[in-house]
Amino acid sequence: MPEPTKQELLVGVDLGGTKILAGIFSPQLKLLQTAKLSTKSERGFDAVVSRIARCVRDAADEADLGLKQVRAIGIGAPGAVDPDSGEVIFAPNLRWKDAPLKKALEKELEIPVFVENDCNICTLGVHEVELKGRARSLIGIFLGTGVGGGLILDGKLYSGFNKTAGEVGHMVIQVGGPKCGCGNNGCFEALASRTALFREIQKAVREGGKTVLTEMLGADLAEMKSGDLRKALRKGDKLVEKVVESAAEYTGIAVANLINIFNPEVVVLGGGVVDALEDEMMSIIVETALDYAMPGTTQGIEIVASKLGDLAGVTGGAVLARQRAK
Amino acid sequence: MPEPTKQELLVGVDLGGTKILAGIFSPQLKLLQTAKLSTKSERGFDAVVSRIARCVRDAADEADLGLKQVRAIGIGAPGAVDPDSGEVIFAPNLRWKDAPLKKALEKELEIPVFVENDCNICTLGVHEVELKGRARSLIGIFLGTGVGGGLILDGKLYSGFNKTAGEVGHMVIQVGGPKCGCGNNGCFEALASRTALFREIQKAVREGGKTVLTEMLGADLAEMKSGDLRKALRKGDKLVEKVVESAAEYTGIAVANLINIFNPEVVVLGGGVVDALEDEMMSIIVETALDYAMPGTTQGIEIVASKLGDLAGVTGGAVLARQRAK
Repeated sequence: MPEPTKQELLVGVDLGGTKILAGIFSPQLKLLQTAKLSTKSERGFDAVVSRIARCVRDAADEADLGLKQVRAIGIGAPGAVDPDSGEVIFAPNLRWKDAPLKKALEKELEIPVFVENDCNICTLGVHEVELKGRARSLIGIFLGTGVGGGLILDGKLYSGFNKTAGEVGHMVIQVGGPKCGCGNNGCFEALASRTALFREIQKAVREGGKTVLTEMLGADLAEMKSGDLRKALRKGDKLVEKVVESAAEYTGIAVANLINIFNPEVVVLGGGVVDALEDEMMSIIVETALDYAMPGTTQGIEIVASKLGDLAGVTGGAVLARQRAK
Repeated sequence: MPEPTKQELLVGVDLGGTKILAGIFSPQLKLLQTAKLSTKSERGFDAVVSRIARCVRDAADEADLGLKQVRAIGIGAPGAVDPDSGEVIFAPNLRWKDAPLKKALEKELEIPVFVENDCNICTLGVHEVELKGRARSLIGIFLGTGVGGGLILDGKLYSGFNKTAGEVGHMVIQVGGPKCGCGNNGCFEALASRTALFREIQKAVREGGKTVLTEMLGADLAEMKSGDLRKALRKGDKLVEKVVESAAEYTGIAVANLINIFNPEVVVLGGGVVDALEDEMMSIIVETALDYAMPGTTQGIEIVASKLGDLAGVTGGAVLARQRAK
């Protein structure tokens, strides 16, 4: 009987502006264990790299596994990434520029590390694990604090000339619309991200609108979360309903734009906003997208919400590790 | 000495709603001769096929060449095309649905025929002949009566799941904006096509605006052409200048959207509007696109006007013929 391969486990890491999530996966991409740590980016690059390493060790230890059994690590980072060098070119949330993440983490853990953009990683995870790789072309759209996306074309991640493809959140869909964090006006992100939803609700409250959210959270709505919107909707809150419906309509128009341009086989929506408000948003998104897309473009295509939720990032990281460590 | 190959010429055909243009090309894609006929789509599919055949014969005859020397024909048709079967699935301008163009024309001319969407063909011609194939990724955007586009990814035409990719003209960039021919509001086409330019000028004139165009063409501006706008601009016409600048800005925003989404190496603009107004529009398009695109996305990429003009279609047809007849 052959001795079992020792280095067969895969690790996926979702590196965010506020937290690090690490997941240990079997060679068949079954999730065995996760661990979570805050990012503490204010402590600088070296400290964050050490925290990533600690988070990976914590997950392994919790599952009674050793790092020696890990074949490779795949990380999604929030920004522009050079997947070849493993450098994070630019990550405003972490205040990183040309940060040698692959090199630093390989030194710390002595395991091969592969790095990609976080939305690309989530798209990869959804494509490979949730859809079992069956779609040749797919667009992932993730609504969270911001809006990001990833593209699978001809079965593979597509990252473009400067490795920045998939910035669907900064597609302008309403010239002259609300100001976006990027400096432009009317970006998809400025109309349908969590930030946009909260801004519209706070604006409506300032203008005298009534919502159960002020009873739940106080007049300034400072600690609002996506889940609060779901609670308010379940209580029949009309103000929140209107804001969420409007964001879902903008999302549907953005989806139609992408269908008209790319004609993908599958469009997957995910991220914290969709995870929390799937029941309320998805039917509006799909209906609006089918209404706006050109005749003939939508035949046989799917527009669906991801079921991976928070785990899309670590799952995609494990997929990347498996693909690249070959 | 080997006898020279007899069937070495290539033919490209640009099939439009109002005219057919055929071009005979050398094996090295040098244009030898063109011929033009009106389409007369009201006479029905069989008549149009006969007219395409006649146009090809005319071009060959004019150049003292015979159809026996033609290796293959590539045609761009205005609508959704199945490149495998050579059927035109849907072409509203020709009133065609599931029209077996390849089969019918092959029967008529006894030469292999390959069919693609017209904007895809133009993009292919620009990529292969004007840029000599050097860009791995390219987006072609063509501003004419409508607005269409084509995508080259990984060096090849990308047509998507239902073969409809590249419908950039129906990307909504201004929710609630002007009505588009497709039924939606605020499409790129409704803001920057020739139709949109003429609509805005006619509207401004109805509202009392002054332009030299009414002196040139009469109060109803019925026979207006893109070239008239250029003449008016050269005469310092402020009304036309404002309308053209606005269309160029919308085009720049659309280009930025596509750069954010795709991150192509090259963006090429063409079509009758750009051919006529290149000097007036291109600097505004480029400036606006660079302003709206996300940091890092535009490094080293090119945004240029095609020099092929009216010949992009026949050139791309010849490229398609050469690629597919291999």
